[in-house]
Amino acid sequence: MAAVIFENLAIIGAGLIGSSIAHSARAAGIVRHIRIFDQSSAVRARVQELGYADTVPETIGETVSNADLIMLCVPVGAMGAVAASMAAFLKQGALVSDVGSVKASVVKAVKPHLPEHVGFIPGHPVAGTEESGPDAGFNGLFENRWCILTPLENANAAQLEKLTRFWQEMGANTECMTPKHHDLVLSITSHLPHLIAYNIVGTAADMEEVTQSEIIKFSAGGFRDFTRIASSDPIMWRDIFINNKEAVLETLGRFTEDLIALQRAIRWEQAETLQRTFTRTRAIRRSIVETGQDAPDTDFGRVKNKKRTVEFP
Amino acid sequence: MAAVIFENLAIIGAGLIGSSIAHSARAAGIVRHIRIFDQSSAVRARVQELGYADTVPETIGETVSNADLIMLCVPVGAMGAVAASMAAFLKQGALVSDVGSVKASVVKAVKPHLPEHVGFIPGHPVAGTEESGPDAGFNGLFENRWCILTPLENANAAQLEKLTRFWQEMGANTECMTPKHHDLVLSITSHLPHLIAYNIVGTAADMEEVTQSEIIKFSAGGFRDFTRIASSDPIMWRDIFINNKEAVLETLGRFTEDLIALQRAIRWEQAETLQRTFTRTRAIRRSIVETGQDAPDTDFGRVKNKKRTVEFP
Repeated sequence: MAAVIFENLAIIGAGLIGSSIAHSARAAGIVRHIRIFDQSSAVRARVQELGYADTVPETIGETVSNADLIMLCVPVGAMGAVAASMAAFLKQGALVSDVGSVKASVVKAVKPHLPEHVGFIPGHPVAGTEESGPDAGFNGLFENRWCILTPLENANAAQLEKLTRFWQEMGANTECMTPKHHDLVLSITSHLPHLIAYNIVGTAADMEEVTQSEIIKFSAGGFRDFTRIASSDPIMWRDIFINNKEAVLETLGRFTEDLIALQRAIRWEQAETLQRTFTRTRAIRRSIVETGQDAPDTDFGRVKNKKRTVEFP
Repeated sequence: MAAVIFENLAIIGAGLIGSSIAHSARAAGIVRHIRIFDQSSAVRARVQELGYADTVPETIGETVSNADLIMLCVPVGAMGAVAASMAAFLKQGALVSDVGSVKASVVKAVKPHLPEHVGFIPGHPVAGTEESGPDAGFNGLFENRWCILTPLENANAAQLEKLTRFWQEMGANTECMTPKHHDLVLSITSHLPHLIAYNIVGTAADMEEVTQSEIIKFSAGGFRDFTRIASSDPIMWRDIFINNKEAVLETLGRFTEDLIALQRAIRWEQAETLQRTFTRTRAIRRSIVETGQDAPDTDFGRVKNKKRTVEFP
């Protein structure tokens, strides 16, 4: 059990990430008291029921008033308003951080509202599932995942060190970079994949010559993987694309350019070009599995679990 | 244990599907003798070693000569040459089938080579993993998956009935449709997803401002799912795109059109359009999970397996 890093933790927003931080910080023994606020009274009631917060106040002010670390776990588009409404209640020397999937726009939205006497170090744990809401969180979500911190130029070194330890004790690896670089890296490793997945599922839904039932039945050919990604929280993703517009449009432009080249290779039956393109992508997959960023299992236990069930009923 | 459906089974091509048929047909007890041929002598030696064939002949002629069912499990582009080389050895009343991911072009390539005295019913089991080769197959791959059969107009009803039972005894559901319709359905549920996945992994590899190490580290944000699909067999996929060119180009055209509309919505920050698009795709995901075409598990055991390990060491 690690030593306590922050006495009082305030979490704003009890979604997948907010509730996972509560579970993980508790399990790691790095906080003493957890207060959680969510703007929805139904969610607050559910958090109370699930019992992973010590207190579930009715107001954001009460939630942050004695907190040493305040974690903003709301959609990126809501960060500014949340910062404004809590600013007056923050105590001297508190640290504000967040988990938003976009960083430059969060800095722009949050920073102006914060008083001089509190620290602010934005962050982003690159971890998740397609589930959302107060029931979705669990201890283990951040295990062997990366948490990117994007400290501003005048960041307090002691606070950065504490925040880094906070994430590491929850199992994450940490890395620092600028908000702008973060937004570019994530535009290719996360934002574009989600956009593409949402898009292909939409295209499939509109194919009038192919029935919905056929699409569902024969989805095991590859399509089902995209539907999983495309079932992530729509509001969160709406905000991400609007708030990381420039990097996403740049990355998307490159993707489309490459896709059109591939389309041309198919039209002209350029077998060698196709085979070369399909071969070079295997090396990247190998590295991802080797560094533990994905399970090496074929098919992620979809088939293996079934086999296990058959063999050991 | 079911009754024997085909006395002698010949499998041409010992990849993932060919070897899975051997394992599954053996386990179901629906064949008596299995002969496997592969053009690679190294693969033949490995099949012999693994022991899932009764005989591993040196020639295709010897493999098919007394077979009741001949399953062509080679890349789509090789089907015609294989049919030509085996035609003279086929016995009276034998049934030829295949597992190719494209059907119209396989019919065109195979049919002209077959003598009048044998039947031909093309098929396609919609199942797979990203693994390939003689070690990849296993009993269970076809369990609760769909096998599409595309009998031609003059197909022998008794042979169709036997082939249907053959797949069902290996755990698959079966459905009949025309080759042309098959190719359109699969263009959206399988071929386009693979093309998109190969493409995005290529785009990522070419981003000069983002290092390969960053792409790999932060792949858990969505990208890793695409790399899995994009590590499928390059030769198989090269052949699929060339042989289903028309349907793929049509489906890809729709996809690109939709993507450009989404790009425009991001550029103009049309929040409602984005949220609406991202919401409608959830219903399709739900149906896929409900009909058992995917595991309901969040994250496919990537995280859950880890949790299990922690809880029950």
